[in-house]
Amino acid sequence: MKSVGVGILGLGVVGEGVVRILQKHHDNFQRDQEIDLDLVAVSSRRDVQARALGLLDIYSSDLAHVVDNPDVDVVVELLGGTDTAYQCISQALLNGKSVVTANKALIATRGRELMRLAAENGTELAFEASVGGGIPIIGPLRHTLASNRILSVMGIVNGTTNYMLGRMLEDRLDYDSALAEAQALGYAEADPTADVEGFDAAAKIAILAMIAFNTDIHLDQVATEGISNISPTDMKSAEEAGYVLKLLAVARRQAEGIDIRVHPAMIAKTHPLASVNGVHNAIYVVGDAVGETMFYGRGAGQGPAASSVVGDLIELARHITYRETITQPVWDTEALPLISDNDLMSTFYLRLPVPDRPGTLAASATIFAELGISIASMVQHAATDQQAELIFFTHAAPVAAVNTALDRLNASGILTGKPSCIRTVTD
Amino acid sequence: MKSVGVGILGLGVVGEGVVRILQKHHDNFQRDQEIDLDLVAVSSRRDVQARALGLLDIYSSDLAHVVDNPDVDVVVELLGGTDTAYQCISQALLNGKSVVTANKALIATRGRELMRLAAENGTELAFEASVGGGIPIIGPLRHTLASNRILSVMGIVNGTTNYMLGRMLEDRLDYDSALAEAQALGYAEADPTADVEGFDAAAKIAILAMIAFNTDIHLDQVATEGISNISPTDMKSAEEAGYVLKLLAVARRQAEGIDIRVHPAMIAKTHPLASVNGVHNAIYVVGDAVGETMFYGRGAGQGPAASSVVGDLIELARHITYRETITQPVWDTEALPLISDNDLMSTFYLRLPVPDRPGTLAASATIFAELGISIASMVQHAATDQQAELIFFTHAAPVAAVNTALDRLNASGILTGKPSCIRTVTD
Repeated sequence: MKSVGVGILGLGVVGEGVVRILQKHHDNFQRDQEIDLDLVAVSSRRDVQARALGLLDIYSSDLAHVVDNPDVDVVVELLGGTDTAYQCISQALLNGKSVVTANKALIATRGRELMRLAAENGTELAFEASVGGGIPIIGPLRHTLASNRILSVMGIVNGTTNYMLGRMLEDRLDYDSALAEAQALGYAEADPTADVEGFDAAAKIAILAMIAFNTDIHLDQVATEGISNISPTDMKSAEEAGYVLKLLAVARRQAEGIDIRVHPAMIAKTHPLASVNGVHNAIYVVGDAVGETMFYGRGAGQGPAASSVVGDLIELARHITYRETITQPVWDTEALPLISDNDLMSTFYLRLPVPDRPGTLAASATIFAELGISIASMVQHAATDQQAELIFFTHAAPVAAVNTALDRLNASGILTGKPSCIRTVTD
Repeated sequence: MKSVGVGILGLGVVGEGVVRILQKHHDNFQRDQEIDLDLVAVSSRRDVQARALGLLDIYSSDLAHVVDNPDVDVVVELLGGTDTAYQCISQALLNGKSVVTANKALIATRGRELMRLAAENGTELAFEASVGGGIPIIGPLRHTLASNRILSVMGIVNGTTNYMLGRMLEDRLDYDSALAEAQALGYAEADPTADVEGFDAAAKIAILAMIAFNTDIHLDQVATEGISNISPTDMKSAEEAGYVLKLLAVARRQAEGIDIRVHPAMIAKTHPLASVNGVHNAIYVVGDAVGETMFYGRGAGQGPAASSVVGDLIELARHITYRETITQPVWDTEALPLISDNDLMSTFYLRLPVPDRPGTLAASATIFAELGISIASMVQHAATDQQAELIFFTHAAPVAAVNTALDRLNASGILTGKPSCIRTVTD
């Protein structure tokens, strides 16, 4: 069979994993998948990894060595960043090459543009590794679940924050200690902003929504709130009420359009997402025919990411080897309006720090009543230092009303500290 | 675009679901997937469903109306049974048509033969709906996870037994009451043998192993044990020791070959499969690069099964619409020997009913010691009516040694009833 030339841009952790799989399983892929993946060019800033992997003879620090190489049929982009990666991918597509990338930041901002460029040039762009590490999710959404109108996608898609929240629950660590531990273990970066403020999760839910709803979504359209305000008290309240605190990425199709957001949420312990622990990820998809499905696995790391990259590579290589005409829908067929967070309904957990004196419960309950917010349950923890905490779980209420209630509570002078306001999820 | 002619054999529950999706989403598929699925022929024994669905003008009771119809490009086989279904599918493939089927019994016995026939005739056979209802699992194994050497597949793939075991745990029902309840709710058939004796799960794990390991497996090669011997005492022991009792389907690749079996197992509560409740299914896959992944959802029912059937239909229709040459590997490239159960190691739970008198513990412990079976933990429940129960959890031991120990215990005369012997799973 005709071999398929593979070129890799970037030989970091994932690039090394891809090379190792290609070396280890080349003959299996030839026998089982009937394709011959031939690694013909690699490029990275320095030659140290190419040397370690025995690839010096196909190495160049010049990215054009891969992008413009006539022997390369598929380019694997693992550079990270968006500017150079964009230039390389678009040039490769213009050159008629197929492209596999793990670059979530790029796909979440310019994915549609690149998919259109691929279609115009009769080639393909694949990005399974951009969401959920080794978990097959883009493939199932595009293929098996294409028979459904997808109603919602909810995910725990950031392992760093999920690990931290787990540690805060198990050992009652506070946020700073959990972050320090995650950094010490290499799960969190020195600058943890992208993880803890929810930007990483926002890029992933933007990509998932783009595929699930056949529409264009940009990272900037995702309403994002991180976990840095989560307190041990909130963790404890969640546990007592039968919930687990998670950083949740959500995209839902509604009659008026879609809503898409990332924020901490209390998830009922009976929900399949509640038992996704540690650095694992899971994506929960509801379709109009299939009902609820969930996809679970390791969301990061060399093996999982390389598994998804090479999975894409195998599929593109089969197309190149066996198909005369390549056609990949751009899957951008619905222009769905975004629903503002303020137009949504949700159930909430609200924790109000108040002085331990008569009238605070009545004052806050009155504000809720005036705004039509119905309370499902309420707890007042025993006071310490003349401080009490009122904990409310609400029935479904307009997000705008809850925000107004918080504004009024803050203005009322009855709060002695910052209140917590976290959505709850039961189904 | 050129339309793709679809013919359906069988208009039962799943057939009706497929028709409804095709009617509801025809225009979406045209817009999003760039295919035009045109239902041109249906066949079933009686015309009552065709009439109800408004399909009388394309109905015939003669199966050849679909199988030999020149306007049909893809045949959807939903007849059930194996003989007629085999004849229809093989004739359709010989006629150059692609085939989608949900027929697990047929694929688990003659799947390879039909896949070869499809390849020889330049056409395709798809069967996502044969395992796990709406859960995408065949697709991910064939595509995204093809980058891995799959090491093991473990599944809770029978909703009926999972529902029954859940009821036995929650409400302490005995087996007969749980079965009666499942039958009353329509989850179990009047003759529940295929579910409760594990044959349904055996067909599904045979199919999963065939795809995961690229090898030929026949249903008859699956060692199968059902749940009818599970007692409330075993459920309770499992719970106390941190396990949940499930009917588990397992296939593992080992150095010497593969082992494949279905049996009740105690699964550690920390394992992702332990929280798969009710009629849900889940398949847990371990690959050499991806690590652990799990696929979860509704394992049966009209919507889920039809979701998978139409998912396959969309993929085959895209191939027909856009590809000049169809090539689907037969994925039958490794002739892996089967490892006999007696050559395996496992951890076990053993419950021995004994008289409440001195010496029974010593006698049984001696038998275990002589056979090299190491005990991890042991409990003796308080006696009632001069009856005691010895409960052992073993370290990993040869299955053959444990079977020999049970033979010796039975022959020793110290047992006052039938012992329980159930495997435990922690990772």
